[in-house]
Amino acid sequence: MADPRVAVIGASGYAGAIAAGLLHRHPSFELAHVTARADAGRRLGDLHPRTRVPLELESFDPERHGGVDAALVAYPHGAAAPTVAELRGRGVRVVDLSADFRLHDLTTYEQWYGSHGAPSLLDGAVYGLPELHRDAVRDADLVANPGCYPTAALLGLAPLARAGLIADAVIDAKSGISGAGREPTATTHFIAADENLTPYKVDAHRHTPEIEQELALLGAGVRITFTPHLVPLAQGEMASCYVTTTREVDSPALAELYASAYGGEPWVEVVPGPPGVLEVRDTNYCRMSVHHDPRTGRVMVFAAIDNLWKGAASQAVQNLNLMFGRDEAEGLR
Amino acid sequence: MADPRVAVIGASGYAGAIAAGLLHRHPSFELAHVTARADAGRRLGDLHPRTRVPLELESFDPERHGGVDAALVAYPHGAAAPTVAELRGRGVRVVDLSADFRLHDLTTYEQWYGSHGAPSLLDGAVYGLPELHRDAVRDADLVANPGCYPTAALLGLAPLARAGLIADAVIDAKSGISGAGREPTATTHFIAADENLTPYKVDAHRHTPEIEQELALLGAGVRITFTPHLVPLAQGEMASCYVTTTREVDSPALAELYASAYGGEPWVEVVPGPPGVLEVRDTNYCRMSVHHDPRTGRVMVFAAIDNLWKGAASQAVQNLNLMFGRDEAEGLR
Amino acid sequence: MADPRVAVIGASGYAGAIAAGLLHRHPSFELAHVTARADAGRRLGDLHPRTRVPLELESFDPERHGGVDAALVAYPHGAAAPTVAELRGRGVRVVDLSADFRLHDLTTYEQWYGSHGAPSLLDGAVYGLPELHRDAVRDADLVANPGCYPTAALLGLAPLARAGLIADAVIDAKSGISGAGREPTATTHFIAADENLTPYKVDAHRHTPEIEQELALLGAGVRITFTPHLVPLAQGEMASCYVTTTREVDSPALAELYASAYGGEPWVEVVPGPPGVLEVRDTNYCRMSVHHDPRTGRVMVFAAIDNLWKGAASQAVQNLNLMFGRDEAEGLR
Amino acid sequence: MADPRVAVIGASGYAGAIAAGLLHRHPSFELAHVTARADAGRRLGDLHPRTRVPLELESFDPERHGGVDAALVAYPHGAAAPTVAELRGRGVRVVDLSADFRLHDLTTYEQWYGSHGAPSLLDGAVYGLPELHRDAVRDADLVANPGCYPTAALLGLAPLARAGLIADAVIDAKSGISGAGREPTATTHFIAADENLTPYKVDAHRHTPEIEQELALLGAGVRITFTPHLVPLAQGEMASCYVTTTREVDSPALAELYASAYGGEPWVEVVPGPPGVLEVRDTNYCRMSVHHDPRTGRVMVFAAIDNLWKGAASQAVQNLNLMFGRDEAEGLR
Repeated sequence: MADPRVAVIGASGYAGAIAAGLLHRHPSFELAHVTARADAGRRLGDLHPRTRVPLELESFDPERHGGVDAALVAYPHGAAAPTVAELRGRGVRVVDLSADFRLHDLTTYEQWYGSHGAPSLLDGAVYGLPELHRDAVRDADLVANPGCYPTAALLGLAPLARAGLIADAVIDAKSGISGAGREPTATTHFIAADENLTPYKVDAHRHTPEIEQELALLGAGVRITFTPHLVPLAQGEMASCYVTTTREVDSPALAELYASAYGGEPWVEVVPGPPGVLEVRDTNYCRMSVHHDPRTGRVMVFAAIDNLWKGAASQAVQNLNLMFGRDEAEGLR
Repeated sequence: MADPRVAVIGASGYAGAIAAGLLHRHPSFELAHVTARADAGRRLGDLHPRTRVPLELESFDPERHGGVDAALVAYPHGAAAPTVAELRGRGVRVVDLSADFRLHDLTTYEQWYGSHGAPSLLDGAVYGLPELHRDAVRDADLVANPGCYPTAALLGLAPLARAGLIADAVIDAKSGISGAGREPTATTHFIAADENLTPYKVDAHRHTPEIEQELALLGAGVRITFTPHLVPLAQGEMASCYVTTTREVDSPALAELYASAYGGEPWVEVVPGPPGVLEVRDTNYCRMSVHHDPRTGRVMVFAAIDNLWKGAASQAVQNLNLMFGRDEAEGLR
Repeated sequence: MADPRVAVIGASGYAGAIAAGLLHRHPSFELAHVTARADAGRRLGDLHPRTRVPLELESFDPERHGGVDAALVAYPHGAAAPTVAELRGRGVRVVDLSADFRLHDLTTYEQWYGSHGAPSLLDGAVYGLPELHRDAVRDADLVANPGCYPTAALLGLAPLARAGLIADAVIDAKSGISGAGREPTATTHFIAADENLTPYKVDAHRHTPEIEQELALLGAGVRITFTPHLVPLAQGEMASCYVTTTREVDSPALAELYASAYGGEPWVEVVPGPPGVLEVRDTNYCRMSVHHDPRTGRVMVFAAIDNLWKGAASQAVQNLNLMFGRDEAEGLR
Repeated sequence: MADPRVAVIGASGYAGAIAAGLLHRHPSFELAHVTARADAGRRLGDLHPRTRVPLELESFDPERHGGVDAALVAYPHGAAAPTVAELRGRGVRVVDLSADFRLHDLTTYEQWYGSHGAPSLLDGAVYGLPELHRDAVRDADLVANPGCYPTAALLGLAPLARAGLIADAVIDAKSGISGAGREPTATTHFIAADENLTPYKVDAHRHTPEIEQELALLGAGVRITFTPHLVPLAQGEMASCYVTTTREVDSPALAELYASAYGGEPWVEVVPGPPGVLEVRDTNYCRMSVHHDPRTGRVMVFAAIDNLWKGAASQAVQNLNLMFGRDEAEGLR
């Protein structure tokens, strides 16, 4: 049987380009098309040399690109929904990297992102964090790839949430500059970012409702405080989670809780000391440690990912692997 | 009247070297001596070219160096106390950059640092955060220069503490690599630090009791959670403070609280948006913003300093200025 | 007598902003105005926090801004000439940071930059490298501040050129990203520059004729090879000069040559080992070493500057100091 | 037939660790052992998390480790030779990453490195730059893996050397900090390297005779000038080569020369514009561009590699592939 043919719609951004590179070298998918809105006509490998993908970027054409078996859509929020709808209308199975299908509640979506371009698809979309929703992803035709911050934060907090331990949580997150996207701006200028560190969107970051939705599904219906910071590195993200617990715990109990939650997970590493983001650079791993402070009773979890990989591109491929019955790790080592 | 003569004892480390550079160019102090334990015989300007201090590093000799009017002691914790005692015994006024005289309670000191080399001096030592203890610093003969993290955290939290607003606080701090000292180690190797970000000392950092001591003096007798992270930049420190309040506040009240606390302070800048550490690089400023999250009721303060300047060397000079009746900003612009 | 009043025309770019900051704190100039083409209405200290200049950026108005004693013009090449002409027409003494008045030969200018906006002023302009043209700068009404690369290369090569030693020269230069300007572009994006190093303009960089003009004036009428590279740091520039000599030299002779050339220069440091760019960061120093390779007979000079300081802003202030009879180092330490 | 069993002797350094990681995931070699002199007893994956190699580092034991089919030896110069001799004595085929077997001439070796620990093996050693000596590598039992700088410089210059075009060459090289090794030193401290750029070993770098030996074999018996610089990035190396030619050439001729030299090479990319080191990060590629300056007649070649990959670890695996009849690219994509 032929390998499923996959298109990456929006391959000129960082996440799309990395996903295209992964699929180009994937042993059991065929990268059939790469599209881009602004750079059509250029070879992807010229625009993003590290991908070494020899395909030419095309302008998206539903007719032409709707014939594939699956598509990764890496468009900005808002722009993704109508494109996803068009692809789904032609039977293409989709992993969408935007926020458009992550929130189950339309009202919440509208409140944080504005009007929605394909609300009827919301119900069927699966939140594609495989460690939480593996079985649903397998059967899904539309997977909403999680945001980078929610990926780290939720993997870090899920065992506590399931155990009913979270009374309150502060998530102080740090991300490399690639999280700000490929557009050259005052923020992404080397001179602004280098040797600097800045909190941003301190008043309300759109990843907050996404984290709260999933925590609630796990049993922790709390309002969290989530604040991201930009740090001077290219790729890497750390979610430092400070949890006030509903009851007393101790270190051995925590260790057991995390070991049993993630012992069988191929892409989650629980380590004794706090991880560094460099340890997961260019990988699909989430690497974390959990700590108990007897002075305050607080539990701390430090969860590190590569924001462009496990936080976007490689997690999308992990989802594709599940959707097409492949080994979850295929093409990602 | 001649300018007071000052010695920097321990000028081969980062903080000592910067302090020596500031004093060498200071309009109303005379940098009389620089000493070092390991690099004696070298010119300070050769060891630390940016200081451009032409003095030769000497081995510390109480006889020879005890004749100055004031000394900055930049020794490691534990090593500082006996040297300070020797200098104080000869009547030298001292600003000590170590932790040896920061904690008023001997038992607490011993618990975190081990035995103390000069406990009899503890009582007379003044905690040298001028914005909190300006008058006491003026009259002090022994000033304990605050730790870098406490400097940022306390300046960020002091207005809330004084107002009785702090019920609980999480401080997630980030520091540049110079905070780890000049010794080449696995941690300070470029390859370990570059493109990386790591929490460290997550189980108990020695700056915790220092922060709690000063918060208690301000009226907030709480146990805080304090966790530092290493970020890939040379100098700069951010204290991201997440405060659960004792009562409801709103943004205008917070703005007023901080404006009235710091309106007259020459070295504190309260800005509307979150500061970046680069904005205070190589300066004595602490730059901060305060925010209220109506979703959770939490108050957030982001306070940025240069860990080697306001967090160490320039704050020591600020203290010296006060002790000798100089304008607090002299030699620091 | 009142301090000369100075305007910085084009203070929103990196060099203009730093110059404004230096003049704002200068003991014997008054910073009267700062102007900007795109950011008028903002406080300079908000746009460039590190300057802490409280003045508001104004739109340039020859009427209003022509009343100062001196102006630094920090406009792009081509845009500078007409503005300089307008200011000169009102008697304002000008230091121009663009290339518009650096080349004495109009034809050469046109070949590299296009048509010239004020050719009649070329004759009176002085090339403002004080170490080469100090006396002329003192009397000049229009000083052309050198390019950053020529500053480092010429200071490095001048003693050899004067001694008639240069038969051929390769200059491999490296610059921090600020050299690419404040505009956010694909090149200045953090993700493009971080962990990268790229040669650029390898076929012909506009600083080449400027270097050749000055070398010729010093007696070395050679065609040089000059190639710049972008390196992942903010400020700093290294000119690595490889010289084939006209006759044999040896290390002691070279040491003497450089010592006698620069022994009395306040802003040139000749050191035994190769300098690092960090040693001159945020200073007006040029720091260099000279070496002889007995295997090949070649002479190598490594000259480091801060491209935004000695390569632009602080050198402009050094020129202003000379023009107004100040100590050359005033306001620059 | 079983996969050849390979040991990495000296896997705790950067190059050894990366090589171990490549071999651990290689489809047709079995990584049998990893050894280390100082870190024996630790899991390689704990010491170098990015490798994720689960093997424990052992102390080298000729008895135990001499039973493999092949070994990569990643010891410092001098320490390698006796170990290689021991392995060769037991019939193990060796790729040695040190300089001990790179120079064919014993006298030259001794002049640059001191006495040699196994001179009798020099004759049989093959210089393992596959693009120059592919056939010899296939049959070799002892391959001397090239130095990182020679790899970039020789690939950049080989086509010119073969064509008899090199009259003189200046090689200005730039390397990331990993080139200075894993030992924490004053040079590799983050604070010394960050935001800095420094020439080093300007008087004589040991890679010079290695480059000259190979150029001579290609027909260019010239003395070159080679100067390395440290740049603030982790991995990446650029050889900027400035060639005075023996006769006139032009751009089309150069383009043809390089296209025909490297058209069939799997790991050499000739591109029109100058490459950036980031484009080859974590790969076995050498990426280069060639330029002719009609003003001076000079030819410039810019060749970029990852110093730890093509400059060490992955080139060693490329050599192993050749030695065991594998596809040259196996395990390296």
